[in-house]
Parts: sequence; structure tokens; C-alpha cells
Amino acid sequence: MANTPVTVAHGDGIGPEIMTATLHILKEAGARLDIEEIEIGKQVYLAGNSAGIAPASWDSLRRTKVFLKAPITTPQGGGFSSLNVAVRKTLGLYANIRPCVSYHPFVQTKHPSMDVVIVRENEEDTYTGIEYRQTDQVEECLKLISRPGSEKIVRYAFEYAKKFGRKKVTCFIKDNIMKRTDGLFHKIFDRIAPEYPEIEADHWIVDIGAAKLADTPENFDVIVMPNLYGDVLSDVAAQIAGSVGLAGAANIGEQVAMFEAIHGSAPRRAGQNLANPSGLFLGAILMLVHINQPDVAELAHNAWLKTIEDGVHTYDMYKEGISKERVGTKEFAEAVGARLGQKPETLKPVTYAANVAEADPKPIYSMPEPQKKELVGVDVFLDWWKGSFHGVANELGALVEAVNGDGLKLQTIANRGVKVYPNGLPDTFTVDHWRCRFVNDAGEGGAVTHAQIIALLKKFDEAGLDVIKTENLYNFDGAKGYSA
Amino acid sequence: MANTPVTVAHGDGIGPEIMTATLHILKEAGARLDIEEIEIGKQVYLAGNSAGIAPASWDSLRRTKVFLKAPITTPQGGGFSSLNVAVRKTLGLYANIRPCVSYHPFVQTKHPSMDVVIVRENEEDTYTGIEYRQTDQVEECLKLISRPGSEKIVRYAFEYAKKFGRKKVTCFIKDNIMKRTDGLFHKIFDRIAPEYPEIEADHWIVDIGAAKLADTPENFDVIVMPNLYGDVLSDVAAQIAGSVGLAGAANIGEQVAMFEAIHGSAPRRAGQNLANPSGLFLGAILMLVHINQPDVAELAHNAWLKTIEDGVHTYDMYKEGISKERVGTKEFAEAVGARLGQKPETLKPVTYAANVAEADPKPIYSMPEPQKKELVGVDVFLDWWKGSFHGVANELGALVEAVNGDGLKLQTIANRGVKVYPNGLPDTFTVDHWRCRFVNDAGEGGAVTHAQIIALLKKFDEAGLDVIKTENLYNFDGAKGYSA
Repeated sequence: MANTPVTVAHGDGIGPEIMTATLHILKEAGARLDIEEIEIGKQVYLAGNSAGIAPASWDSLRRTKVFLKAPITTPQGGGFSSLNVAVRKTLGLYANIRPCVSYHPFVQTKHPSMDVVIVRENEEDTYTGIEYRQTDQVEECLKLISRPGSEKIVRYAFEYAKKFGRKKVTCFIKDNIMKRTDGLFHKIFDRIAPEYPEIEADHWIVDIGAAKLADTPENFDVIVMPNLYGDVLSDVAAQIAGSVGLAGAANIGEQVAMFEAIHGSAPRRAGQNLANPSGLFLGAILMLVHINQPDVAELAHNAWLKTIEDGVHTYDMYKEGISKERVGTKEFAEAVGARLGQKPETLKPVTYAANVAEADPKPIYSMPEPQKKELVGVDVFLDWWKGSFHGVANELGALVEAVNGDGLKLQTIANRGVKVYPNGLPDTFTVDHWRCRFVNDAGEGGAVTHAQIIALLKKFDEAGLDVIKTENLYNFDGAKGYSA
Repeated sequence: MANTPVTVAHGDGIGPEIMTATLHILKEAGARLDIEEIEIGKQVYLAGNSAGIAPASWDSLRRTKVFLKAPITTPQGGGFSSLNVAVRKTLGLYANIRPCVSYHPFVQTKHPSMDVVIVRENEEDTYTGIEYRQTDQVEECLKLISRPGSEKIVRYAFEYAKKFGRKKVTCFIKDNIMKRTDGLFHKIFDRIAPEYPEIEADHWIVDIGAAKLADTPENFDVIVMPNLYGDVLSDVAAQIAGSVGLAGAANIGEQVAMFEAIHGSAPRRAGQNLANPSGLFLGAILMLVHINQPDVAELAHNAWLKTIEDGVHTYDMYKEGISKERVGTKEFAEAVGARLGQKPETLKPVTYAANVAEADPKPIYSMPEPQKKELVGVDVFLDWWKGSFHGVANELGALVEAVNGDGLKLQTIANRGVKVYPNGLPDTFTVDHWRCRFVNDAGEGGAVTHAQIIALLKKFDEAGLDVIKTENLYNFDGAKGYSA
């Protein structure tokens, strides 16, 4: 079979050691790879590349479409941005996959039968990092959840479950509070799940779900989540399984995929032949399956499991009474290499199947079927401060009533989501960030035009009221597209 | 000493039983209470009160300022809103306090020496529930973090630590991503912490912090967090300590405070004398301390600990080999009552001190010292769809360049936080939600007027481009108040 081109970066700190160890095992196992090396990390940052990667390296990633990446060190000081964020954004890596498995009784854990895969949406949510300060007192961040973005990740979770013989996909959301954003994610989950009747589907509100995951992870299988919940809970899952040092991750895009350890570059451990290469190695296993070398993945992964089971452990796993032999990075890799062909006896051996090219693959996102959208109002946000956190709403109300007219009328004023005008309560705590909702003066739901909104903004300006932002109100197929 | 007026609601499901049990213990322990009863919950909802509380009941809450609340059942079907949200918003209950303690070896837990208090901000974050759908594909939620809101909760956490003899306060934030919103929370934490030199202060990025909390909670003491992280991790902490059935919570406002169990009304267990009253009872202990009856709180809490230690357990705690006697709700309360005056021997007895009225109490929030705010641009968001998720950004760029002029110029177009124009990458996945950033055409940072922004919006309208929202760009004391 032909070799598969793969881009490899050795990174910083313990990166080069664990990459060498990983590639040693892969080579011994017969991985069919053509490796292109690129440099990333500290030296590349210091050479003036703000994201730690040289422009030319993108060509390699776009050519091979497969990236095995060791951890890097971001230099201290300002002006350096995250390499991972740059790679994820530039290449559209929308899915972060993190298997979290416990290796009881060979690696200490409070959760002996844990085997959870976290599938985390990787492009949206508050992690788009769009933030504004528009008043003295308030900072704002936008949380964005899109239909195709949610389709991509939910579809990926079910396809992953199908490919890897998983039994259940669980969705974590907070749609009792975030009815629209998390509600959209949930709705898409409910729409896609029935296409996989062989896979059980359920969902939890993220607070209770997280509590159950942290307490009884053995009850979960694959869990799919928006970005923020996934970020937090994938770390929780990896940690309680045994250690973040034993977890690899895949970052999947439409074109390119990146594979890595989830831990950092641990500069203090570097160059001492101490580090555990297992996280990166397990990332590389995900890569081998991705590039359709399941035979190699299976051989190498089972040899690794046998090594763990034989008690041949690096310092971080080593535990008196459990471990048999304390080894360095290189010796660990050699121990795995020496066990190629063996399978674990206590731990469950892995099996990987070849990728199946489906005759009629499901699209990873659907094309939109637009609904009828009608502009029905606008929320005008003001910066307004009268020297008190209490009892000033009616005064603002009177000022804003004065800009009414031309077919729009003030309906309510709210402060941090609490209605304060009309008929607000005098004891409500209010900051300098006010939302004034205007609707058609013939009644909410009546059509409004952009020109009317522009005229309204002009009147605000003339009244000396400081408009800091606007949010238009729309109905879609007659249903409100905005919260109360 | 005079009695303290307290408002009590018996709630739904198991609520009446566990409230009766709790009040029984409180009475036996000599609590000095004048109880005003109000009705909340299912019947009140069905009588036409959309938040499950009758208007007249607010008077009682405002009068007594102390609310001991049993769990309620929200009826099925639409039109009913959360009672807890209504109480929290109406009364400005900004702090949610949840002690999570394990009672090893008497209640099963994987974390025998856990004793963590979660202090959760309760009014802000994405939980203000301000959401918009403005395009076919994208839903938006606003995350708001305010300076005084953050001051209130951070101050509360340190004052709590001081009052209850806690050694450390830890802050969880994600300010490597949300540099402005979570950055503000972190900055305020760093500013307030040094006012309490006797209390250790540290912080974690919430993903790693959550992982450590779930794995080794014994390393934490008091943890203060924004609303969403606090919601998720307070459930995690309660669950891993033993059970959500054993946790009470306080919700603190400037005027009024509410005390409750964190579990629900468990209608299927109702009326069978089965339910464990401990969650509500521990909520009532927090109330006794709050109303300055530390003697009663100490007496009752130690009797409860002794009961747990004696193995007198309700069904949910009962475990063969650990428990001695399986009792009902009523008998459990009587067992606690019978132990008044006793202290636990294995578990640590509690001590509570009287509230100290400080001569010069620290204000719970500071008055603003406004910075110089300058309008320097605007982000205009468009709904624009050309039938493809790829390769259309330059086409939009050309259309938006055409509305340039009058002192404003288009700087960049971004899609879900990724820059796509000018010099975007053709393979970036783009949805129908675009952000067009305009700055002073003499250079970013130059002054812009509201009139210029209004003129720009007019040109967008004339060009037939669908503006869905705007976000003004400001500098504060010369520093950028917006993300890239």
C-alpha cells in the first residue's frame, strides 16, 4: 500500500522526546507514512510569527491534510497568540475528539470502568472571542451557535459512534436557560439522532450531566457538547480517568485533521528522558485510524495496552505495588515496540475496522431552507449613569419615551435581563447598561423598517442619549426570534 | 432575645414533609423564629400566577427579608416561568452559596475529605437570557459581566471565608479566551484579594480548575465563579461529595436572602414519609447563621452530624454495612432532635460565631470612577447568504467597500470571529452572519461620531444590505475596549 503523507511537528519542551518515542513505535508497527516536518513553537514565535507557525508551514498542512503535533511553549510576554487557536480557525477544525479511558488497576483512578469520548464543538460559542466594553461598568461577549456548526458536530458524534461501535450518544446543553442558542443545538441533536436508530440518544442539562459525569462516568459513552461545556468537561473527564498525561485528541476539519496530546510541553521535564509519550502516542493512534491504517493502529494500541498492563510505567504513572518497572521515555517506547503482536489480558484489547466509503454518505451539514424573516423591532442599548445603582429607571424611562414616534414605541427597558420599566421595582440593582425595546406602535409583531430604526437612532442622538449597540428583533415564519 | 420574622413556604411534592421535619428540629433546638407562611408552587401556578408566587407574597418577603423555601413542582406545559429565577431577579439575589461536604465513612463518597464552598455569581453571564435569532443560521446570546456585579460576588466570597474561618478563596475563569468579560472578573478578584491578607487567594483557568475539583476536591476551600461555571461546578461538587440530596444553599441579596435544599420536589416520593430532609435542614442552618442565631445553628448542626454518624439514615443514604437504622422523614427529624446537645465524634463538630457588626464595613461594591470613553468605530453585523458556506467573502467585501465613505472605512470582515476579508482564506467555512468593522478612515483609534454611524447605516440600507445588529467600538482612557 502507498504511504500516506503526514505533517509532523516536534514542538518544544518534552515535545521532541515524546514525538521521537511515538514515531519509533509507529515505525516498528509498520505505519505507512511519508513524514514532512515543520517547525512550530517558541523559536518560530521569537522569529516574529505571532501564532508560532511560519507562513510556509500552512502549505504542508494543506498538502498532507494530516498534522501530528507535539506540545509547544508559548513565550512569555505579550503579542503572542495561541497556535492551537490559529490552526483551528485557519483550517476550520470544527470537532475536538477526546477519548477518556481508565486503565484500572494499572493506572490509579477512582473510576475503574470509565470509557468516555467527549466530542466538543470547536469553532463557536463564547469562544469566538468577540467582546466589547461599551460602558464604564459592563463587558459583553457574544455567544454564537449556528445551525450548520451544530449539524457538523452532532453529525460527527453519531458517525464517530457508528464507526467505533459505540452504543450511545449523549447531548449536554443548558436550554432551560439559553432557550435559543442551546435550544438550537438540542433541536439539531433531536433531528439527527433518529437517523442512527442503532445508537441510543439522550440528553442532560449540563449542570446535572456534568455532576453525573464526574461521579459515575461509567454511565456515559459518547458525549457531544457546545464548545465551552466541552472544554471544561473534556478536562474533567481526562483527569478523573487517570491523568491528562494519558489522553490524546483529534481535531477534525472538512479538509485537514490535527492529532495531539492534550497536555503541555512541560519545559521543566524536558531533555531528561522522563516524559510519558502516551498522550501523543494515543493521538497518533487516532491519526492512524483517520488515515485508514486500522491494522497498524490496532497492533500498536494493543502493544501499548500490554505495556501498561505489564507495569512498565514512566514516572508519572509509576505507583509502588502496582507498577513493575520504572522506565524513561525511550525505554517505554522500546517496551511498546517489543510487545507488538501481543494483546492485553486484563484490559480490553482494541479492534479497529477499515474506513468504509459509503455509497450515499450523509452530508455533514444541510443547505438552509430559509424561513420568512420579518423585522418587527429593535433593542437599543444605552450607556446611562445617574450616580446610583437603584431607583433611576423611571427617570430613564421618561427620557426614552420622549424619542418615541414615527411608528415605533418603547415597550420595555431592561437592565441585565431584568425588566425595570414600566412598572419596575425600586429595589432592583441596575448598572449603566440599559436595553430599550422598541416595537411597532400598532402592536408587537407589526412590521418595522430599517429606515424607521435609523430615524429612531437619530432621535436618540439628538436627545443626547448614548446608543452603544443595537439588536434587531425578527420573527421567523411568524414566530418570535428573540427572548423576552 | 426577640424572635426573628421569617417567611416559610412548604412547596410541593416532598416539600411539606421535609419542611415539617426541618421546622421540628429548629423548634426543638430553640430557634427564635416568627414564621409567616406563604404558598408557592403548583397550585399557585395553576391559579394563574406565571411565576408560581402570588403578588401578595412579595410583601412578606420584603418585610421579613428571610425566606426558607421548600422545593416546588412547576406544572407541565408552557407559560410557566421559573419561580427561582423570578425570586432571584426580583429581589436581586446576587450570590448563590453552596457548601459541599463529604461525611465519610458514614455516607458513601469517592472523596472522603471534601469540604468545598461554591460561591456562584447569580445575576449575570449568559444567564441573563438575552437571545436573538437574526439570520436563518445563527442564534446569539449575550454574556454580560459587570464591574459592580463582580465586586459584589468576589467581596461576598472573601467575607464568607473570613466569617466562617476559611483559609483560601480560589477564582475560576476562562480569561485566556474571554479576555474582557472573564478578564474583568479576574481583575476584580486580584484587586479585592489583598484586602484579606489572612486568606490565601489563587485562580485557575476553569477547565483545569474543574478537572482538579472533580478529581481532588480536598485541595479546594472556597471557590468563586461567574454564573455559568458556578452552575455546572456547584452541581459537580455536591454530587461528588455524596449526593445532591445532602446539600443546602443560600441565595443572598442586598436586602433579602433565600435558603433552600438544592434538590427538587420528587413528586414520586411525596407523602410516604421517605424523603431525606437534610438538604433543606442544612439550608436552614445557613439561615440561622445569617439571622445571627449561631447558638441554635451549632446545636442543631452538631446533632444532625451525630445522627449521620450514628448511622440513622433515610433510604437515600442507607447502605448495608455502614448504616445502622433505616428511618423515615419524621423519625429522622426526631433522631436529630433527640441528639440536641451531642456532638459528633468521628466527623468534625461545627462551631458558629455571632455576626460581628464592623465599625467600618467594606462596601459591597464601589462607586465608579469613570474613564475617558471615546467612540472609535462600529461593528455592523449583516445577514447575507449567497448559497455557499465557502469562498463568498470577497464578493461581500466588494459590496461593503461600496458603502465606505464620510470618514469611516471598512477595516475587516469576520465570520464567527474569523477574519475573512481582506486576504481571507478560501477554505474558511462561513455562515450567513457577518461582522463588518468600520473605523476612522484616518486610522484606527481616531474619533467617530454617532451621526457618522447613522449615516453609514443609511448607506447599508440603500445598498440593500440587511443590517441585523451593531456594536460600537470604544476606547477607554486610550485603551481599546474591543477584541480583534
